[in-house]
Amino acid sequence: MNALPDIDAIRDAASRIAPYAVVTPVLRSAALDALAGAELHFKCENLQRGGAFKFRGACNAVWSLSDEDAARGVVTHSSGNHGNALALAAATRGIQAHVVVPEGAVQAKLDAIVRAGGTLHRCAPTQAAREAMCAEVQAQTGAALVHPYADARVMAGQGTIALELLRQAPQLDALITPVGGGGLAAGVAIATHALKPELALVAAEPAGADDAARSLAAGSRIASMVPDTVCDGLRALMGQPNFDALRTHRVEVVTVSDAETIAAMRLLWSELKQVVEVSSATVLAAILKQPQRFAGRQVGVVLTGGNVDLDALPW
Amino acid sequence: MNALPDIDAIRDAASRIAPYAVVTPVLRSAALDALAGAELHFKCENLQRGGAFKFRGACNAVWSLSDEDAARGVVTHSSGNHGNALALAAATRGIQAHVVVPEGAVQAKLDAIVRAGGTLHRCAPTQAAREAMCAEVQAQTGAALVHPYADARVMAGQGTIALELLRQAPQLDALITPVGGGGLAAGVAIATHALKPELALVAAEPAGADDAARSLAAGSRIASMVPDTVCDGLRALMGQPNFDALRTHRVEVVTVSDAETIAAMRLLWSELKQVVEVSSATVLAAILKQPQRFAGRQVGVVLTGGNVDLDALPW
Repeated sequence: MNALPDIDAIRDAASRIAPYAVVTPVLRSAALDALAGAELHFKCENLQRGGAFKFRGACNAVWSLSDEDAARGVVTHSSGNHGNALALAAATRGIQAHVVVPEGAVQAKLDAIVRAGGTLHRCAPTQAAREAMCAEVQAQTGAALVHPYADARVMAGQGTIALELLRQAPQLDALITPVGGGGLAAGVAIATHALKPELALVAAEPAGADDAARSLAAGSRIASMVPDTVCDGLRALMGQPNFDALRTHRVEVVTVSDAETIAAMRLLWSELKQVVEVSSATVLAAILKQPQRFAGRQVGVVLTGGNVDLDALPW
Repeated sequence: MNALPDIDAIRDAASRIAPYAVVTPVLRSAALDALAGAELHFKCENLQRGGAFKFRGACNAVWSLSDEDAARGVVTHSSGNHGNALALAAATRGIQAHVVVPEGAVQAKLDAIVRAGGTLHRCAPTQAAREAMCAEVQAQTGAALVHPYADARVMAGQGTIALELLRQAPQLDALITPVGGGGLAAGVAIATHALKPELALVAAEPAGADDAARSLAAGSRIASMVPDTVCDGLRALMGQPNFDALRTHRVEVVTVSDAETIAAMRLLWSELKQVVEVSSATVLAAILKQPQRFAGRQVGVVLTGGNVDLDALPW
């Protein structure tokens, strides 16, 4: 499960999810291009099913199972977009999704998982309790674990974004994604370099959860850190296979402050007219922080999701 | 100037604006389809240049002028999206745009007009003062008046939305736009019925500015009314040629309360992930208010603009 997908696996994923996933549009903004001094091609995964790119990986994992395995359902621990995505993906195959959620998770996100048909299992808000509850559900039901990012099927699903984006904007010479656990960054790196090896890959990371930046600088994965960032989608530590992929593909990490990210989020709302969640805005924050890195280039920019609480905007 | 455009004029407008305008995407939402009980195809003019459909009409008017007339510039009175659109359109031809704005207009909108290269002319906030100042600017400069909606070139430009939308979603059997002055509603009605005469046309109107509904019911245009609605883009009274077009094409008006519109705006943000201004949300409010009118149909829904003050959301 923890090996990395190759381009064939990513192409297979694209075929597998095609009946269910949205081919998301690529949007442009003259105002943001002028601000950045580059041509920005925004891949709008906020318009993906479930409002986030996570549906791609979850859907590929669900449809990769044999009928026999699928019949026992799937399980994961995530109170965020992955849990919701797995519930939506399981529904496309008519199987059960068990989602382990820590006490204190946001009620609106739990409601969405239940609406999608998922079954909630509550546990204490620690990593150990989440893993123990996951193991318990697996033991009781035989459900297949679909890890949010350290899973080759999930990485392959996320990598389909790059296949689509390079078809929509073949002229790209750089590409930037956020990095949290690294499922998206790894899948996109593998797909991109198989198609266009010279394309520069950048990952944007909150300064308060900069384990990817520090791991790559150190040459080995930092496995513990207490994240402190408003970017709730990017608090996970990078997985080991994800780290391996980012190192192999020479992905460079740009860290950004929460204030820079919130300012960029506001720009995406006001200029691109897209409702995106705060984690999604790290990419524009990174471009505006290091414009020399992108100057004059054709840059693919992955906007990861749009699930926000409209009553609690961060500005 | 006040006659109505025909389909040939609208096709000409499409060619004229093609180098400058965005072919805006059509977005879908499974959640909104389920709520409405219909298949909704959202034409996203919030993604148009300048953030509103108004660029189409202004651009067509600007490029319809002879070189000699164009050299003297254009003038209009509008502190909203049309003023900004005319300034942007004039810039594409390298000519001057004079925009008459009433004292008390929103500073952010005035800043946008100036950024686009327009020249502001301030006047008292009355219709008479606006028209007097417009006449004065015309007398001094020879600039051509581009009325926000009672102008065949403007209506033809707005009608290009229907040409695009019917190419993007030819299966439509109903189409809904907001109605204020009626430039959009008239242009779309003329274009739509030339291509697909059986298509049902609906216009959504704020109950606090329901001159279109009352004019069509009475069979003659109501020429005075004090609007009272949060929909700042829909406070204008319908023009005479606009009324004629709506009556000829049997456009049916659905009126919606501000509360219904604000609730629909929130749905467009949370489900479609689009930043749209409150006037844009009247269309979804109308669909949700009269679902039987749209049940099971393929409905084109024009989202008119996305220029909002992110610090003053109406919920």
